[in-house]
Amino acid sequence: MTSGTQQILALNAFRPDADAAALGGTLEGLISRRTAAFGPGSVVFYRQPLHVVSARGATIQTVDGERFLDLYNNVPSVGHCHPKVVEAVQKQVALLNVHTRYLFDSLDDYAERLCATLPPSLGHLALTCTGSEANDLALRIAGIATGGKGVVVTSAAYHGNTSAVTEVSPSAYKVGAPPDHVQTVAPPDPTYYGPDVAAGFTAAVEGAIAALEARGHKLSCLLVDSIFSSDGVFADPVGLLAGAADAVHRAQGLVIADEVQPGFGRTGTRFWGFARHGITPDIVTMGKPMANGMAMGGVAVRPELLARFSEKFGYFNTFAGNPVAVAAARAVLEVIAEEGLMANADHVGRHLKGRLEDLATRAPALGAVRGAGLYLGVDVVAPDTGLPDPEGASTLINALRHKHILIGAAGRLGHVLKLRPPLCLTVEEADRFVDVLEGLLP
Amino acid sequence: MTSGTQQILALNAFRPDADAAALGGTLEGLISRRTAAFGPGSVVFYRQPLHVVSARGATIQTVDGERFLDLYNNVPSVGHCHPKVVEAVQKQVALLNVHTRYLFDSLDDYAERLCATLPPSLGHLALTCTGSEANDLALRIAGIATGGKGVVVTSAAYHGNTSAVTEVSPSAYKVGAPPDHVQTVAPPDPTYYGPDVAAGFTAAVEGAIAALEARGHKLSCLLVDSIFSSDGVFADPVGLLAGAADAVHRAQGLVIADEVQPGFGRTGTRFWGFARHGITPDIVTMGKPMANGMAMGGVAVRPELLARFSEKFGYFNTFAGNPVAVAAARAVLEVIAEEGLMANADHVGRHLKGRLEDLATRAPALGAVRGAGLYLGVDVVAPDTGLPDPEGASTLINALRHKHILIGAAGRLGHVLKLRPPLCLTVEEADRFVDVLEGLLP
Repeated sequence: MTSGTQQILALNAFRPDADAAALGGTLEGLISRRTAAFGPGSVVFYRQPLHVVSARGATIQTVDGERFLDLYNNVPSVGHCHPKVVEAVQKQVALLNVHTRYLFDSLDDYAERLCATLPPSLGHLALTCTGSEANDLALRIAGIATGGKGVVVTSAAYHGNTSAVTEVSPSAYKVGAPPDHVQTVAPPDPTYYGPDVAAGFTAAVEGAIAALEARGHKLSCLLVDSIFSSDGVFADPVGLLAGAADAVHRAQGLVIADEVQPGFGRTGTRFWGFARHGITPDIVTMGKPMANGMAMGGVAVRPELLARFSEKFGYFNTFAGNPVAVAAARAVLEVIAEEGLMANADHVGRHLKGRLEDLATRAPALGAVRGAGLYLGVDVVAPDTGLPDPEGASTLINALRHKHILIGAAGRLGHVLKLRPPLCLTVEEADRFVDVLEGLLP
Repeated sequence: MTSGTQQILALNAFRPDADAAALGGTLEGLISRRTAAFGPGSVVFYRQPLHVVSARGATIQTVDGERFLDLYNNVPSVGHCHPKVVEAVQKQVALLNVHTRYLFDSLDDYAERLCATLPPSLGHLALTCTGSEANDLALRIAGIATGGKGVVVTSAAYHGNTSAVTEVSPSAYKVGAPPDHVQTVAPPDPTYYGPDVAAGFTAAVEGAIAALEARGHKLSCLLVDSIFSSDGVFADPVGLLAGAADAVHRAQGLVIADEVQPGFGRTGTRFWGFARHGITPDIVTMGKPMANGMAMGGVAVRPELLARFSEKFGYFNTFAGNPVAVAAARAVLEVIAEEGLMANADHVGRHLKGRLEDLATRAPALGAVRGAGLYLGVDVVAPDTGLPDPEGASTLINALRHKHILIGAAGRLGHVLKLRPPLCLTVEEADRFVDVLEGLLP
């Protein structure tokens, strides 16, 4: 099995063997240095990679002065180098940067503001440096709370890069399959489940729980990205996770909402992706946009679950919650509120989705358009057969790059155009993307 | 079993139940907020915690304007808020902060400088955000390369906080013991091995490999912190790891040097702790001081090992190697060189060790003094019996805090005073510590 993410990378990435000769001297030199130091672990985007030097808002600039519209990067979520985040980091890094075994006000202030966005039942936080660490800790907490090890994830899920989290990330496998204690289900895609996606997904999760139990694995949790990013972006119908969450709870398992991608307002109408679906998870994990690019992740959890974990293990994370990361994270919450970025994500996202849906009615290479807020997925299909066309998606992504627009791919097959720009994207920028895309379509 | 680190924390930490009443209003309020948000996951140092606001060099300042001499923090290794690191971060955070799937010069420049400090055989790097992530990845690489899962670690080792790394960190367990595939050995302590510590440690590692194999676990690796930090600081004799490394290689296992604490010049005479012992590991992991407090970790590895891993898995780490972290990390390498911090660690470390050894001859509560460069451990013992005295160590640490000096504890029993100040510590600061310590001894 070649999984989604890996296949996507193979399709979109710079290929040292095939592409190096076509590069100019500077880029070829940079690629050589990168490969010399990082070897096969380094994967660089695009047949012609970007040599970047600066960024602001939704624009990235290269060394040649070329400006790229960024519809890919969801980490600098309030905008690349947002002045308020920059100022907060600049001020704090000159003053103090230590661990959380001393007291400093900003951490407690931030924790209170973050908790206010979450369901009251998720009363305790643990901070980490990355979403991977957050999911790793969440799996440990769930395992201890339930006494189970069985995990249900979607078939092209990506939850991070640690040993334990890779096991539940089918898209990280180049060969082989997840271990025995992991059971996959298809994402909420009408292709698999027909028109009643929610019922189909619920039934699939029930089946996965039964399959785990039949193999002798007590259920620990359903670990789910509520926007199904790496599976190809599935956001609808609103409420689709409710039945699955109920099924998990009936089976004495926990629901872990991986909000690393949908969290912090990206889906427009709610601060958290799970809230769109009206569920209350037992554990919420977060990462990427939390501090606009400074390393920060976290776990919000029902206090009794953390208490049970803490009886068995200490958990300390040296860099987590340090004053510099917290300064950035506080600024992120403030900017989201002050600049109305959720409303902007909703407004610009609806506009962009509408224009793409309209375009898809006229462009036979485009299939379904999905998503919420500023997280959208667009299927690329073969015009004659309507079947998924990963090569076509890769061609489009590289062609868009040459038109100075950055997007990515998603889905098990890699045929989904993935759009997740900074939340400050304007209607004009969204229009520019659709206009350019239309010009590139066959 | 109550393990070392956990016991140390229990001894040194603020105890919400016992200590809260003695605090002033502000501190009590801060502790309440901290506990409300983080619950039992939060552990704060000292019976009377520090409410910190700024730091510079080896000095931390509290909100009351009190200044503390910092002999504890090895993360801000070139000094708290070093101007060169601060400037590098301030400049970069305003310009660009993205992931490594684009090209930017500073990353490749840094990678080359870092590789130049390492044995040529460790030709490839993978960057992470934390030492935990580095050790987690190293274990995965070793597992794939050897086909084994058995790991040898020291009995109070601490290698990080992920699921897989906690398994090989006996000191993270509050109850229970490491799993079956993990075999512990005592650290190179004459108490266990007699005068020929190196031979004893080698024999113990050989025995551990045999024990793993007897339990059906093929050897993956010896994972070892070359200064044995959490075990209580063991640095001598120079070369002590050579026999153990040979034994591991004879058994087709790999040697992973966890340089998260001894690396980046701390031991004074060599840039890496393993180099003091004349060994060439197969994998080196790094973290804490790498970017002076910005989240950064890494793995240096023999290229053929990374290649085998990369056949099976992709590894990408969103925040790792971002331009801001790299800017800080480059500044760290430059400051270490420009300010002669390794020579300073050697010089001030020898002076401090000499004074502590002298003091120990006169103070019956102090036992052995160990360490290299600016990583020292001092046993605290019961004056009448000479036995380890964890309560005495805790009393001293809290008493030093009231004299405005910050140190920590280490060792399986928690009776070792742990000294690992920023590498810019001066002879005068070292003398001040010893003078104050002498005044506090019974």
